Amino acid sequence: MAFRIGLGFDSHEFQEGKPLYLGGIHIEHHAGFKGHSDGDLLLHAITDALLSAIGEPDMGELFPDQEARWKDAPSEIFLREALRRMKEKGYRIINLDCVLVMDSPKISPIKDVIIENLSNIMQISKSAISIKGKRREGFCLERGAVCYCVVLLSHEG
Amino acid sequence: MAFRIGLGFDSHEFQEGKPLYLGGIHIEHHAGFKGHSDGDLLLHAITDALLSAIGEPDMGELFPDQEARWKDAPSEIFLREALRRMKEKGYRIINLDCVLVMDSPKISPIKDVIIENLSNIMQISKSAISIKGKRREGFCLERGAVCYCVVLLSHEG
Amino acid sequence: MAFRIGLGFDSHEFQEGKPLYLGGIHIEHHAGFKGHSDGDLLLHAITDALLSAIGEPDMGELFPDQEARWKDAPSEIFLREALRRMKEKGYRIINLDCVLVMDSPKISPIKDVIIENLSNIMQISKSAISIKGKRREGFCLERGAVCYCVVLLSHEG
Ligand SMILES: [Mg+2]
Ligand SMILES: [Mg+2]
Ligand SMILES: [Mg+2]
Repeated sequence: MAFRIGLGFDSHEFQEGKPLYLGGIHIEHHAGFKGHSDGDLLLHAITDALLSAIGEPDMGELFPDQEARWKDAPSEIFLREALRRMKEKGYRIINLDCVLVMDSPKISPIKDVIIENLSNIMQISKSAISIKGKRREGFCLERGAVCYCVVLLSHEG
Repeated sequence: MAFRIGLGFDSHEFQEGKPLYLGGIHIEHHAGFKGHSDGDLLLHAITDALLSAIGEPDMGELFPDQEARWKDAPSEIFLREALRRMKEKGYRIINLDCVLVMDSPKISPIKDVIIENLSNIMQISKSAISIKGKRREGFCLERGAVCYCVVLLSHEG
Repeated sequence: MAFRIGLGFDSHEFQEGKPLYLGGIHIEHHAGFKGHSDGDLLLHAITDALLSAIGEPDMGELFPDQEARWKDAPSEIFLREALRRMKEKGYRIINLDCVLVMDSPKISPIKDVIIENLSNIMQISKSAISIKGKRREGFCLERGAVCYCVVLLSHEG
């Protein structure tokens, strides 16, 4: 059995009036995330953690934000491509843990629906997915949010 | 043998005159950490890393800061509950590594006493616990400090 | 087989006119990183992640920045000492994953040459080393850059 660790990081500024997406779920909120795609920093951090863990190019390299076809793209596309490459290389997810640092919206009430969605996309048990929200409290994020993600993968043989 | 990874994050603003607690140890300092509990961000980050790794609700969910009974609570209570749940699920800690980003107090001189205390609480070898301090140097934490923690757990069978 | 996880963090402010080093490679840029040594935050984060994972003192303790002999020192020295201690304790690197948060220079074009260099220094396959760059986008780093690194180690027997 072989193992791999991966680290994902993403940050985005809020943009008034843009729809907010977190973990592939549309959340009612007065602001979404700036960015070429839908700005779903949770999916971006998970995608990058997976790609890194298996030694593939990162999200910015695979899906350049200069390319028109990724304009407002649903970030699930990026995650599914990372999962495809992961399976191709024979890896599977043991578990992943994500921290979203943002003052609002609160993560706790929307956590279950996000984990359910990720569980469906990633085809892993909900118990292998953890997401938690933290308020900024002294951590300086001007007008934005940040997401950290660690993943642990295994490989048979 | 099964494995699990966890990621903890916490940040708190300094508050003049409040007692400072780090890793369960009272440190002589002109300021402590704002917060409903004793503000011990090192214990909070470790607690959340453990809870996430085993798929339990996070610290904010288990110990809501609106509840009066957690006012000024010693954070060791939170860590002990995470450890209880971890053992109940059959996991044990392989090792954990924490980074405290703060300009003062310096972590190096108080590291050994903190690790000794954590080793007693967690009932693991001191060599399985790592803590390091980093100065802010360009990392923007207005009036506060931040702690990151990664944990690796194993499960027999 | 025994395992260990490690977490590295480093941040540095930019300093106009100082040579820029990243992963041991000199990069043409108008600014480098402030600091007693060459300011190579990527090597510093990797070094600290390795030292922590094996339970050794951190970089700041092994190479105090008050000591004149580390003035402008090439940070490869620090990494090589961490690797020496790691081998002495019987550990080997499974893989490592690093995130550099900085607006410029762009990491993608210089990634390959950095990974090649790290692969030579660390004597591990390039596929076991991941580096990605992220722009600040709402993540507040006044005039600096930050690097995060996770490592996974194994130990025979
Ligand atoms: Mg993004
Ligand atoms: Mg806290
Ligand atoms: Mg440094």
